[in-house]
Amino acid sequence: MNINRQRLLSMLEEVNRISAEGEGVTRLAYTAEEDAALDWFVETCDAHSIETRRDAMGNVFGTVGNSSGDGGILIGSHLDTVKEGGKYDGALGVVAGLEVLMALKENGERLDRPVTVAAFRGEEANILGGTFGSRAFCGLVGFDDTFMEKLEQTPFTEREIRESAGHEGYSDYLELHIEQGKSLENSGTEIGIVDAIAGIRRLDVTVYGEAAHSGTMAMGERDDALTHAAGLLLEFERIVNSFGAPYVGTVGTFSVHPNLANVVPGRVDFVLEVRGPEIDMMRRITEQFTEYAEAGHNVKISENVEKPPSALSDVIIEYGKSVCREAGVRYEVMMSGANHDANSLSSVMNSGLIFIPCLNGVSHNPGEYAAPEDIVRGAEVLLGTVMKLQGNNCGQ
Amino acid sequence: MNINRQRLLSMLEEVNRISAEGEGVTRLAYTAEEDAALDWFVETCDAHSIETRRDAMGNVFGTVGNSSGDGGILIGSHLDTVKEGGKYDGALGVVAGLEVLMALKENGERLDRPVTVAAFRGEEANILGGTFGSRAFCGLVGFDDTFMEKLEQTPFTEREIRESAGHEGYSDYLELHIEQGKSLENSGTEIGIVDAIAGIRRLDVTVYGEAAHSGTMAMGERDDALTHAAGLLLEFERIVNSFGAPYVGTVGTFSVHPNLANVVPGRVDFVLEVRGPEIDMMRRITEQFTEYAEAGHNVKISENVEKPPSALSDVIIEYGKSVCREAGVRYEVMMSGANHDANSLSSVMNSGLIFIPCLNGVSHNPGEYAAPEDIVRGAEVLLGTVMKLQGNNCGQ
Repeated sequence: MNINRQRLLSMLEEVNRISAEGEGVTRLAYTAEEDAALDWFVETCDAHSIETRRDAMGNVFGTVGNSSGDGGILIGSHLDTVKEGGKYDGALGVVAGLEVLMALKENGERLDRPVTVAAFRGEEANILGGTFGSRAFCGLVGFDDTFMEKLEQTPFTEREIRESAGHEGYSDYLELHIEQGKSLENSGTEIGIVDAIAGIRRLDVTVYGEAAHSGTMAMGERDDALTHAAGLLLEFERIVNSFGAPYVGTVGTFSVHPNLANVVPGRVDFVLEVRGPEIDMMRRITEQFTEYAEAGHNVKISENVEKPPSALSDVIIEYGKSVCREAGVRYEVMMSGANHDANSLSSVMNSGLIFIPCLNGVSHNPGEYAAPEDIVRGAEVLLGTVMKLQGNNCGQ
Repeated sequence: MNINRQRLLSMLEEVNRISAEGEGVTRLAYTAEEDAALDWFVETCDAHSIETRRDAMGNVFGTVGNSSGDGGILIGSHLDTVKEGGKYDGALGVVAGLEVLMALKENGERLDRPVTVAAFRGEEANILGGTFGSRAFCGLVGFDDTFMEKLEQTPFTEREIRESAGHEGYSDYLELHIEQGKSLENSGTEIGIVDAIAGIRRLDVTVYGEAAHSGTMAMGERDDALTHAAGLLLEFERIVNSFGAPYVGTVGTFSVHPNLANVVPGRVDFVLEVRGPEIDMMRRITEQFTEYAEAGHNVKISENVEKPPSALSDVIIEYGKSVCREAGVRYEVMMSGANHDANSLSSVMNSGLIFIPCLNGVSHNPGEYAAPEDIVRGAEVLLGTVMKLQGNNCGQ
């Protein structure tokens, strides 16, 4: 059974013709462009006699095999993009899923378990939070007041979101995605098999100094919040590095007050983020930082986010490895530092995530690029893993 | 001849009743509150039969002695404040000047040289630039297109500004001001005699890195502009400290791009400032920084401002020292890190600047405070220096 290279690449090209104006590809969540891409999905399935359905919030599904049975295998990703993003983040996984369905269908093989491709809405950062479509599908949305206020600014009702919880009947989830990092490229590896989606731990840090006139306050008398913060940034870098890969730490948001050229900064606010595969280690990193910061500086540190890492299915990891070995594909087992729809799905079923390399690790950028041979290889590994799962319908 | 402590402190209290709403004192340049304070100046002079005049842009002057002669002695400062500023920055110098006039007048002493007090408009940062009133008085305003556009947003015409150049006939300028730093307080010194107003040299610095996803870009692969900038800040601090007091260096304006918690910063922009009494040394500081930054980082550095230091009058410094010595006042000769109207005046006549301590060096803040005994002592030194100048009308 083969992946049709030409068909796969053509579908990717087709869906990427749908974009708002600007550089690269723009199909923001809940906009006309995302809607058009989801319509394209349905029309493409129709043209290949693949059964489709739309849930109440507009996630779309195409199924081959008997869709009334249990133990369904789900393949998914998303068709929305960031503003002026690339052609591969999300679209690759959906299109490769469609190609897998088409390959299964034209092969005529009897499927013990139905195979469904999902295009989830709103995976990228949006007013309802990232991976929103897949979280709704998995019944993971909380309806607190803050959420309800945001929901009013969208086309959706609470009822539509609740009705979109539709994961029952599916046992396994697979997603193909570009890595969005350089690990595979640097090691010359063709496939990444993800064992964990990184947890995220963020601290809000405020560093206090004393604002003063930049001309009149002598160096030795200063309590310069920015100088304090500079030292903290370098120490944070040192701590994160001491934990080694795949742990990463970033200060991405940083502001200085009052931010005037002639005033010694009185306060600096920043958000410090740690990502990694084990929550305990992530906490140790932030604890070491907090201890250092509190010992020598006037700081206020509070937890902003703690999202534990998600472990993916060992069985699917083993299947993925077997498929790669049998096909002579160089693979490595790795962490995903970014979040994906697979993270939502991993809460409710066995889930797997497969990476292909992307040029220089560039993503969320018009320059995002994955080579055709890597795209085809990714779809082949996806298909191979689906076939392995066909032979396993007894739970894990 | 004595300073009237009660009258001096009462005048300071009176003028500070004029304020917009908010904490502390607010008399922004060119607003109704500044106008009201200038009116108060004129009314106060009228009540003491001190001759006044207003120039075309509204700087006000009060004179004792024969104002038609040459060799006038000018005392000045300003009555505008920053938003929610204090009671002393500017007002102290004007009120002390008025008290000097009143003391001279009631003493009935014949003045060889007329003595004038000026309240200059718009000394604090404003749309036309700081020390605007005194620069106009000294004929230092340039009328380029940028300036003319700004002028249209003010109540002033070009003609009014040009007509306000009125420094001819004056030979010497004196200003009393709070230090706005901690030097006097820390050394237990009662009076600062300023020998130079610091020059200002500012560089625009851009540090380039590569923006990347905070979860997917491994530590070793990152080119984090904020980490680079942190190292540069600490090295700048080290270089400035190696030059010793009174040189100071500040990074007050600092911004990170794209400033998102999940993106490794791709670019940092900041403004680096050096102040000091010698332009060559200031240039050496920025050169050392630039050399270091360019050697190890991807930076773009350009000059933003270079304002040379202003040397004040040696004769007036000597007079001030004599007055202090004769009165048993502890003084030190020092640099002013902040700009003052005396800087404008030093371009066109012999100028002196006298500091009194202010609590914790706090200024531009409702908590700005100078003790009554320091205020009175400052006015006494001002009066003493005027008397020394009375004996010197032969130029220097």
